[in-house]
Amino acid sequence: MIVVMNQNATKEQIINVEQKLIKLGFSTHPIYGEVKTVIGAIGDKRLLNTQEITAMPGVENLVPIMKPYKLASRELIQKSTIVEVDDVKIGGEEIVVIAGPCAIENEDNFLDTAIKVKEAGARILRGGAFKPRTSPYSFQGLEEEGLKIMAAARKVTGLKIVTEVLDTRDVETVASYVDIIQIGARNMQNFKLLQEAGSTGKPILLKRGLAATIEEWLMAAEYILSSGDSNVILCERGIRTYETATRNTIDMSAIPVVKELSHLPIIVDPSHAAGTWKYVAPLSKGAIATGADGLIIEVHSDPSCAMCDGPQSLKPDKFTQLMKELSLVAHAVGREI
Amino acid sequence: MIVVMNQNATKEQIINVEQKLIKLGFSTHPIYGEVKTVIGAIGDKRLLNTQEITAMPGVENLVPIMKPYKLASRELIQKSTIVEVDDVKIGGEEIVVIAGPCAIENEDNFLDTAIKVKEAGARILRGGAFKPRTSPYSFQGLEEEGLKIMAAARKVTGLKIVTEVLDTRDVETVASYVDIIQIGARNMQNFKLLQEAGSTGKPILLKRGLAATIEEWLMAAEYILSSGDSNVILCERGIRTYETATRNTIDMSAIPVVKELSHLPIIVDPSHAAGTWKYVAPLSKGAIATGADGLIIEVHSDPSCAMCDGPQSLKPDKFTQLMKELSLVAHAVGREI
Amino acid sequence: MIVVMNQNATKEQIINVEQKLIKLGFSTHPIYGEVKTVIGAIGDKRLLNTQEITAMPGVENLVPIMKPYKLASRELIQKSTIVEVDDVKIGGEEIVVIAGPCAIENEDNFLDTAIKVKEAGARILRGGAFKPRTSPYSFQGLEEEGLKIMAAARKVTGLKIVTEVLDTRDVETVASYVDIIQIGARNMQNFKLLQEAGSTGKPILLKRGLAATIEEWLMAAEYILSSGDSNVILCERGIRTYETATRNTIDMSAIPVVKELSHLPIIVDPSHAAGTWKYVAPLSKGAIATGADGLIIEVHSDPSCAMCDGPQSLKPDKFTQLMKELSLVAHAVGREI
Amino acid sequence: MIVVMNQNATKEQIINVEQKLIKLGFSTHPIYGEVKTVIGAIGDKRLLNTQEITAMPGVENLVPIMKPYKLASRELIQKSTIVEVDDVKIGGEEIVVIAGPCAIENEDNFLDTAIKVKEAGARILRGGAFKPRTSPYSFQGLEEEGLKIMAAARKVTGLKIVTEVLDTRDVETVASYVDIIQIGARNMQNFKLLQEAGSTGKPILLKRGLAATIEEWLMAAEYILSSGDSNVILCERGIRTYETATRNTIDMSAIPVVKELSHLPIIVDPSHAAGTWKYVAPLSKGAIATGADGLIIEVHSDPSCAMCDGPQSLKPDKFTQLMKELSLVAHAVGREI
Repeated sequence: MIVVMNQNATKEQIINVEQKLIKLGFSTHPIYGEVKTVIGAIGDKRLLNTQEITAMPGVENLVPIMKPYKLASRELIQKSTIVEVDDVKIGGEEIVVIAGPCAIENEDNFLDTAIKVKEAGARILRGGAFKPRTSPYSFQGLEEEGLKIMAAARKVTGLKIVTEVLDTRDVETVASYVDIIQIGARNMQNFKLLQEAGSTGKPILLKRGLAATIEEWLMAAEYILSSGDSNVILCERGIRTYETATRNTIDMSAIPVVKELSHLPIIVDPSHAAGTWKYVAPLSKGAIATGADGLIIEVHSDPSCAMCDGPQSLKPDKFTQLMKELSLVAHAVGREI
Repeated sequence: MIVVMNQNATKEQIINVEQKLIKLGFSTHPIYGEVKTVIGAIGDKRLLNTQEITAMPGVENLVPIMKPYKLASRELIQKSTIVEVDDVKIGGEEIVVIAGPCAIENEDNFLDTAIKVKEAGARILRGGAFKPRTSPYSFQGLEEEGLKIMAAARKVTGLKIVTEVLDTRDVETVASYVDIIQIGARNMQNFKLLQEAGSTGKPILLKRGLAATIEEWLMAAEYILSSGDSNVILCERGIRTYETATRNTIDMSAIPVVKELSHLPIIVDPSHAAGTWKYVAPLSKGAIATGADGLIIEVHSDPSCAMCDGPQSLKPDKFTQLMKELSLVAHAVGREI
Repeated sequence: MIVVMNQNATKEQIINVEQKLIKLGFSTHPIYGEVKTVIGAIGDKRLLNTQEITAMPGVENLVPIMKPYKLASRELIQKSTIVEVDDVKIGGEEIVVIAGPCAIENEDNFLDTAIKVKEAGARILRGGAFKPRTSPYSFQGLEEEGLKIMAAARKVTGLKIVTEVLDTRDVETVASYVDIIQIGARNMQNFKLLQEAGSTGKPILLKRGLAATIEEWLMAAEYILSSGDSNVILCERGIRTYETATRNTIDMSAIPVVKELSHLPIIVDPSHAAGTWKYVAPLSKGAIATGADGLIIEVHSDPSCAMCDGPQSLKPDKFTQLMKELSLVAHAVGREI
Repeated sequence: MIVVMNQNATKEQIINVEQKLIKLGFSTHPIYGEVKTVIGAIGDKRLLNTQEITAMPGVENLVPIMKPYKLASRELIQKSTIVEVDDVKIGGEEIVVIAGPCAIENEDNFLDTAIKVKEAGARILRGGAFKPRTSPYSFQGLEEEGLKIMAAARKVTGLKIVTEVLDTRDVETVASYVDIIQIGARNMQNFKLLQEAGSTGKPILLKRGLAATIEEWLMAAEYILSSGDSNVILCERGIRTYETATRNTIDMSAIPVVKELSHLPIIVDPSHAAGTWKYVAPLSKGAIATGADGLIIEVHSDPSCAMCDGPQSLKPDKFTQLMKELSLVAHAVGREI
């Protein structure tokens, strides 16, 4: 950690900061520049409330040298993590595709879609039972009834299942049905929910917050990891920018950045990023070529009847076609699908 | 609502959309342009899953004419709402100032700060008992112990008290202690928490999400209002932009925009917006001159020992001085403090 | 065009707007909703100063139905444009790679790099002679001397050459040396420069502005196209967002969006987007798989001696390796490199 | 300057960086942490192409300690600059208001508006003769004819005049007519134009770019200042964010930030920030209370006939009323208008 003192800092202020750092267990190395003084402090910033330093008189700012996350960092764990959901391995050579409708509407439709995405090559089935909706007047999901439908579809197809949980009070129930628990973008910094989900020991699919930096996202993963759960799958799903041509702006560079900073696997959600099915195919190919470990794609047998996110859902036949094209791209970058 | 058909939409597709709209209870008014057809649809969009339309073949996009929120809108309620917390009225002629430390650390410090902000003219006392922290290794708050300290400070000073709640499971406990429940920026779209807090009937201080549009913010208010609670106070606290000179970018224009779109009162949090105490005074004056109904300001008797957000906290003497200056600005715009 | 009247608009205000529209050559179709009135206006918005309408009493807002650009739109020209620079065709089956150093520093280095990128498979040579630098104290380029070095390198290698122009006064000189004129991100809305460059008739490589919407970008292309030059190549180079892990955030979804809205070819600049060579390879592969028509990549034989943008430059051997990998990805999406 | 070496940097890489720094004239102070090494380098970064260091093997990143701008910084010049345009002083005790229409349309209208804003208390007259328009089909301004109309209005009213210049080729002509030259937001990084305008010695009104950081804005001022012109007035006019309720998001915190980092005066343009006249009054009051040195406000005698930006223009009577209200706010913060 480097503490930068401002131009007019007094000798006394500099000494005070040094003494505080020493008291906190750091060894200090001041460098007296022509205009400003900086103090190098050796020790582990993660144990420190850095604001105690920043708020001291004469301090201009504080530059961390180590990352604020630890368990999520490749600085600590250099080998890439492979999250295993029985025989499905996320983060290895295989590109894993998760597919299914935004919301579970009824058993027949859901099972029909499940069978089709299975045939097309998906390994995991998605579906929303608890839906976070911008409007209180929108369909909020079938709740536990939806979980039962998911479990039935798993039985028929053999696909693993993943669904989102919104409330700490529902975590236990959700965990009792599904293979992977999803934390949605709106809840990426719902720290109580992260801890509760992490304490189940289930693999967690952690979506990036709408305006979260990659650092904040890895800090959210750190919450789960520090709850004792080492199975976190990161999911890029588009960030909020000024551009309105797509619902969100997919941050494709997050893929190599995460691969450098962290050992955790990363998948991409092109459906929510784009907000329209028309861009799902090109973005899916782009994500795989950029290095993503998987995809989560919305598929609905009748998008214009979907109760949620119909416009961004692919029809099963388009999804089947896409899976074939993705296979070619996966091979081009030395992977399989 | 206006449905815009794309340039190549067939006659059949246009008819299908019209029939769907009619089936949904709308009356339709197609306009055939030189290149594109648009269909005006009269009826209440709030009752509709608009995506059913957007996902239909031939539809380019859909333009809402009415706001998606209703109870929060000035279209419905033209008279400005005044939220009353006993004798403290937010949204009226008086500018209400809320002050106190970020986190409650111990009873002595908290009471000391409480007495000082009361003397300076604050009407409501803030303090964090449950803290949403980016890092799992940071101080997370005193929890119920903190609530008891707040209640004790209320007894001594007569100030009303407000604190943030993070988890649906804590809402009932928090509501039993405080006068106003705060929903923080990170939880603005934690819809279950909004509903749970709304169902207590307590006044709710609803912070704007870090990257929330004003429309999404008013939709979050709608969640609370539709839970039966009519006492929502909006709080602008800075949004995330590319600029890094301040922690967040205070959106001062949100004040007149909210005043136009909604009947709810709006206050400003200059401390979290700026991230440093140095800019709190000018932004506080600016907020009042722009038309805010109040302020929430962090005050700590020893910022360099604060366990949270020390750098953005004012010392009590600076706060006292600021209150005097704010009084002049309030008078200049026809209000009192 | 749809004019939305506000809730309290009077009958007289509605009539005034209709009469104004009729006077401007539109035919009008009012729709009287339960709460608001909207007026459909048929005619060409591009001929209209829409603000005349928006500023009228009682008008809430105005919704355009047609795109504001015409010559750049696929609504007008449905066949994809292929920009031909002699035998190099941009926008066709071949993926065209442009490569070279950020700035031209001296003839030997530049020629050396030129020969190497040619051998690796690049078709066009880039190099900066006039450099837009954030600091007035940074190297500003060799100017015309640099153009001569480029021309010499073209003679030796047979590569086409492209360079940026910054000042209307230099357009004629630049056009006399190069095959393609580049308009940089900072000048995307330097309308005089767009017109001057367009009037040369040379192919124009138009970079997207740092915070330009896709619509504004196509409007900038419209400036060039309406100057009589039909050879515009669009270049996505990252946009400004809140994320700081990369210099800019590459907007990969701009590729399919531009393909849908416009007939112009689009290439991607992963070097400026990422700001570091480490992410250039994955983003290049991602761009091609997403559907880009080409790439522009910074290559420098000794990045740590580069006078500009060294950190984002690939060494020639890494570039050669990348070109081989890109070839596989190009084939996977049915194209060649 | 601090150079942070990455975790796996070899001893040799560290020595190479030190030797390079010494060769560049720095004295070096390495600090060996438990995991990473950082090297403090004392000397003036402004003389350095820092990328030479960043691109060296083993370097993680580089942390500047001094600001990249010098002449614009308060680190160098601690006394606030007052820009004098004859008897009008910008940056002193008086709040200076600039007013007038977006574009000059004809002499009668312009003179009429000029007389009215003069009577209301404006000190400087604005008007656009060269207009940067997003669409090539929009009105582009009267050019030199417009400058003549401005000069005539100055003669009648005694107001100083300011207009925007877009092209280096027009700088001399514009400078021969006006008292202050404006550089618009789109040209904030048109470095050739900055230098050309700076070389006239005229006061320059430098608008902040649409997505410019405050640091980049001060670097643009540095271009002008380093051309020998010390009279730069900064103008905040809203930045681009995800929020669409206003045309741009006014960054009110830029006022105290600029006051801290620079000695240059700063004014605010609420008209372009908001994009609608409805929010101009509250934002004008807010800007003054926050500490702005002046305002630039669009005023048009018949907004619905304006050829440019009518919706954001105040009518003269509303402007007169606003000036009275602003006077009260100015007094409340110890200034005059």
